[in-house]
Amino acid sequence: MNLLLLEEADFIAADRVVLRDRRLVHMQDVHRAAVGDNLRVGRLGGLMGNAQLLRLEAGEAELHVSFDQPPPAKLPLTLLLALPRPKMLRRVLQTVAAMGVPRVVLLNSYRVEKSFWQTPFLEPEAVREQLILGLEQARDTVLPQITLEKRFKPFVEDRLPALTDGTLGLIGHPGDYPPCPRGLDEPVTLAIGPEGGWIPYEVDLLTRAGLQPVQLGARILRVETAVAALLARLF
Amino acid sequence: MNLLLLEEADFIAADRVVLRDRRLVHMQDVHRAAVGDNLRVGRLGGLMGNAQLLRLEAGEAELHVSFDQPPPAKLPLTLLLALPRPKMLRRVLQTVAAMGVPRVVLLNSYRVEKSFWQTPFLEPEAVREQLILGLEQARDTVLPQITLEKRFKPFVEDRLPALTDGTLGLIGHPGDYPPCPRGLDEPVTLAIGPEGGWIPYEVDLLTRAGLQPVQLGARILRVETAVAALLARLF
Repeated sequence: MNLLLLEEADFIAADRVVLRDRRLVHMQDVHRAAVGDNLRVGRLGGLMGNAQLLRLEAGEAELHVSFDQPPPAKLPLTLLLALPRPKMLRRVLQTVAAMGVPRVVLLNSYRVEKSFWQTPFLEPEAVREQLILGLEQARDTVLPQITLEKRFKPFVEDRLPALTDGTLGLIGHPGDYPPCPRGLDEPVTLAIGPEGGWIPYEVDLLTRAGLQPVQLGARILRVETAVAALLARLF
Repeated sequence: MNLLLLEEADFIAADRVVLRDRRLVHMQDVHRAAVGDNLRVGRLGGLMGNAQLLRLEAGEAELHVSFDQPPPAKLPLTLLLALPRPKMLRRVLQTVAAMGVPRVVLLNSYRVEKSFWQTPFLEPEAVREQLILGLEQARDTVLPQITLEKRFKPFVEDRLPALTDGTLGLIGHPGDYPPCPRGLDEPVTLAIGPEGGWIPYEVDLLTRAGLQPVQLGARILRVETAVAALLARLF
């Protein structure tokens, strides 16, 4: 936690917050904070700034806060991600939030096991929890928007063309394709497949929606690693 | 497991192997392999090729194997990594093996907790297990070389200059530094710090050993994400 992320319910006045939950525990156990210490804070969806610890008791801390700094810019990216297996999903959500992805579409694919859509980790509160961990890690305040699309074909045929319009559309896909471009400034729509990859039919439909396959070399990476590698290379 | 990685003990003849362990279970449960199926195989430290499943019983499988293809090239890189916390260590070892890092030095730092050096995950067999998982994921056969350096100063002062000689030496470090370069062909020595980063004294010593700080932007990434992002950007 490199940023103490504050929500509206934490505020007892415009410049005062009281914490009682895991953030308090973290402040005590990891930061070993003491009264008078300064901490970096952010207001969820808003500015970042500084806090001074005014009072620290076993179950409660009070801080004076001020906000003066915008959060870091997001990437100009919409990420389409074949729904990963539940354990991987949690880490990927942290990774996309930490790396500054503003919009993620979790998408079905032939190689996504049906059971993955039943995981409690897809509940809005569970998704939000992982995104917050990513924002706290990277020092950002703005939650990415996460959309679930359980049916591949209607999404790709009917809604994807409008999303990709005006962007460079890319499919991260192993094979004999051009290498993934580097250091772009333009907006990108990037599709990353499931373990085992998109099937040819899916690549075909994504291509018709305006995306083109690009590759990262012969090595097959886990989804979480592929996400970090593709984003770091693109931007 | 995208590659069935074979060791000398698996061979019952030059072109025959028998499997009885987790690789058999994986073949059955995940690949749902049947007699006659073809699978990608690699010989640990050697070539890759194909196997045909000759015989499949509850506790044992026999395969005919042939090898004709070199493993993918490694990155021209020596990675110095402040020892991560045990849980992260395991995933980072998989990631570096999957991404093709040939040499990793796990290094002490002021912000590495002493207890991290006591973890059973640093035992040679445990390290090897994670590296093998990374090779199986990425389809590679050559184990990275992992070295442990429990004392920062003697390593950086006495041994690091010889390692960095003839390479571009970089320190991944947040702050007001030049951006990390992109798409290099030359050999690199890259140092990645612990959670919380290198302390100024350490950056100073690394700099004297020929490394220069570079940054990836304002976002603070977890070690595993930073490794993937830095490697994908550098090469």
